[in-house]
Amino acid sequence: MDNLDLTKALSRPSASKIVMLVIDGLGGIPDPDTGKTELETAHTPNLDALAARGICGLSEPIGPGITPGSAPGHLALFGYDPLIFQIGRGILEALGIGLDLEPGDIAARGNFCTIDKDGLVIDRRAGRISTEESSKLCQLLDGIEIDRVKAIIRPVKEHRLVVIFRGDGLNADISDSDPQQTRVTTRDIVALNQQASHTADITNRFVARAREILAGHHPANMILLRGFSKKPQFPTVTDIYKLKAAAITTYPMYRGLAKTIGMEILKTGQTMEDELLTLKRNFKQYDFFFIHIKETDAAGEDGDFNRKVTSLEHIDRLLPGLTNLEPDVIVVAGDHSTPAILKGHSWHPVPVLLYSRYCRPDGVDRFSEQACIAGGLGRIPATDIMLLAMANALKLDKFGA
Amino acid sequence: MDNLDLTKALSRPSASKIVMLVIDGLGGIPDPDTGKTELETAHTPNLDALAARGICGLSEPIGPGITPGSAPGHLALFGYDPLIFQIGRGILEALGIGLDLEPGDIAARGNFCTIDKDGLVIDRRAGRISTEESSKLCQLLDGIEIDRVKAIIRPVKEHRLVVIFRGDGLNADISDSDPQQTRVTTRDIVALNQQASHTADITNRFVARAREILAGHHPANMILLRGFSKKPQFPTVTDIYKLKAAAITTYPMYRGLAKTIGMEILKTGQTMEDELLTLKRNFKQYDFFFIHIKETDAAGEDGDFNRKVTSLEHIDRLLPGLTNLEPDVIVVAGDHSTPAILKGHSWHPVPVLLYSRYCRPDGVDRFSEQACIAGGLGRIPATDIMLLAMANALKLDKFGA
Repeated sequence: MDNLDLTKALSRPSASKIVMLVIDGLGGIPDPDTGKTELETAHTPNLDALAARGICGLSEPIGPGITPGSAPGHLALFGYDPLIFQIGRGILEALGIGLDLEPGDIAARGNFCTIDKDGLVIDRRAGRISTEESSKLCQLLDGIEIDRVKAIIRPVKEHRLVVIFRGDGLNADISDSDPQQTRVTTRDIVALNQQASHTADITNRFVARAREILAGHHPANMILLRGFSKKPQFPTVTDIYKLKAAAITTYPMYRGLAKTIGMEILKTGQTMEDELLTLKRNFKQYDFFFIHIKETDAAGEDGDFNRKVTSLEHIDRLLPGLTNLEPDVIVVAGDHSTPAILKGHSWHPVPVLLYSRYCRPDGVDRFSEQACIAGGLGRIPATDIMLLAMANALKLDKFGA
Repeated sequence: MDNLDLTKALSRPSASKIVMLVIDGLGGIPDPDTGKTELETAHTPNLDALAARGICGLSEPIGPGITPGSAPGHLALFGYDPLIFQIGRGILEALGIGLDLEPGDIAARGNFCTIDKDGLVIDRRAGRISTEESSKLCQLLDGIEIDRVKAIIRPVKEHRLVVIFRGDGLNADISDSDPQQTRVTTRDIVALNQQASHTADITNRFVARAREILAGHHPANMILLRGFSKKPQFPTVTDIYKLKAAAITTYPMYRGLAKTIGMEILKTGQTMEDELLTLKRNFKQYDFFFIHIKETDAAGEDGDFNRKVTSLEHIDRLLPGLTNLEPDVIVVAGDHSTPAILKGHSWHPVPVLLYSRYCRPDGVDRFSEQACIAGGLGRIPATDIMLLAMANALKLDKFGA
């Protein structure tokens, strides 16, 4: 019996409310000059006060040493083991641009590229054509239909695109057409199991059609596809936790991910203030809220230590808007660390804070990497956080008699 | 997907360097008079300074309460789950005396023993004959060949010996000839599965031949064999971590073990100074170094608390020779605890210290059992240490997108 089975067996609906505030890329590492992380540098009186009333710890999104992508980092926070619940690259790219996927869809990431008269790839990125140029070319390809399978083509950024194949009996277990090198021809897409031969045939014919259509264009006269994957069918948070859950996030990828696990997506604006207002307005209608803050991660990815500090202070100032709603359980967590010094996601465990009337506070009165080491939650797999939130919301029955 | 599969998928070669200093039997328990362990008693300013710059914790070689042998303790440090990657006793004994094993070899541990005229074992250890005496007898038996299977016999210590059987199609799944008691005959070796019947036949005929050869000798007029095992074929550290790894150790067993997992064995002398000189001389040629210090364990096994303290202080004095090379990642760990008071290996978790520019220091500024409790690594399975070292050396890709 794994965690999800156990949770399904024990969870029950109740009126109590859980708010999970996910501060993307929350954790950091110290600035060598000050010896303090972003969170330790930030002035966060509200988070610190909540830490004092709550129980703290450090969460491991996947496991020690493993740096998570955004999708696995979030799935872990929602209790889905990211090594089991994997989402393909094509699907993630589609979710990232807000494409609405249907069951059975398969998606691939793609590039516009340049081939010479012999069909050899001479530039895998077609000179990084502009998003505007790419959008026009996508329109030429969008809607190609082969044997009742429809191809939906959308631009991503510059030379990048997404293709969705929609039709019956598609199987994503096929190889890439992208050779990942130049001076060679594009690859035939090959079925990696017998059931996928129809899909390989369809996608090869799609690529051939795209080549014909793009033939007169330059430099983007061909496409390369990779990362074919199928829309995942994961158990929903309603299946597992019996929650009526809502997601508040400004980025398409997180909306797509939340929708994939059965959360309703609430319309919101582009700022943190908008997100908190959305929470307030919808507070009565749901018993679980996922609020996602992207600014911290973006600052970390840009290597901007000070902007990450400022973003954290911004969140802190808005926190009373959340706590004043008096949810039964508040979780403040991160999907992974994004230390400004590393300019990217990292493996470092992430501070986590859980508040409820029943949480057994631990003496930690500062929400920071260092203070959380001594927290009562200890160092926990991120996949345990939802269970703790459910328990603190009194939404779990006793196990055994 | 287990840890090794995940690591294989994420690891990538890079120029960064990892040095893992393994202080054998590192952990201890307090002297009842002082309340301090060996490590807490020792004056270790260099280790303490490194702890202050690094992140500390306690590692569990196998699991709570389990006392590891040297082989599983080390395998865990290299990221191999010791419950999965087991090495047979015969093979370990062969590695322990520095025998070079070939794929397909099977090895057994053995004793010279004394039998009476009816073939009953009357002394399982042949009066503990001297190593010198045993060496001569081994020469008499060495090279016996049966059906193109060659037996290689080497003395270990006193009455103990190792036999390697080398030939095609050998199967180690056979029973012992050692009855583990006296006043009974030696046992026939029996195949424990059908594929092993040829090997059982060969080994029985070998024992019979040995009995003929030893017949005129006293007290060692027979041999007993046990622990038949095959040379393991483990994935190498190059397979898993894409490392070019070197081992520096003064003891044959650790050299054999390191070789088994694909490390190159560097020639070195008999002292810690020699080992550090070997590190310095070879520092450019490899990206991972395992340096093994045996003195601490030997002192612990002897129950010599003060000598263990002195050994730790000795290591501490030599530490700058390692840190001055400025490896990207330094790990100081132990394969298990060897408290002098217990005069042997123990189950106690082992202090561990990891330093890198990106390690997120934790406020621990003393390398000791007690201080490490509050360390940022927490209490971790020893098998996680390599992953953390790899992450800190920026040798692991992100998981998922």
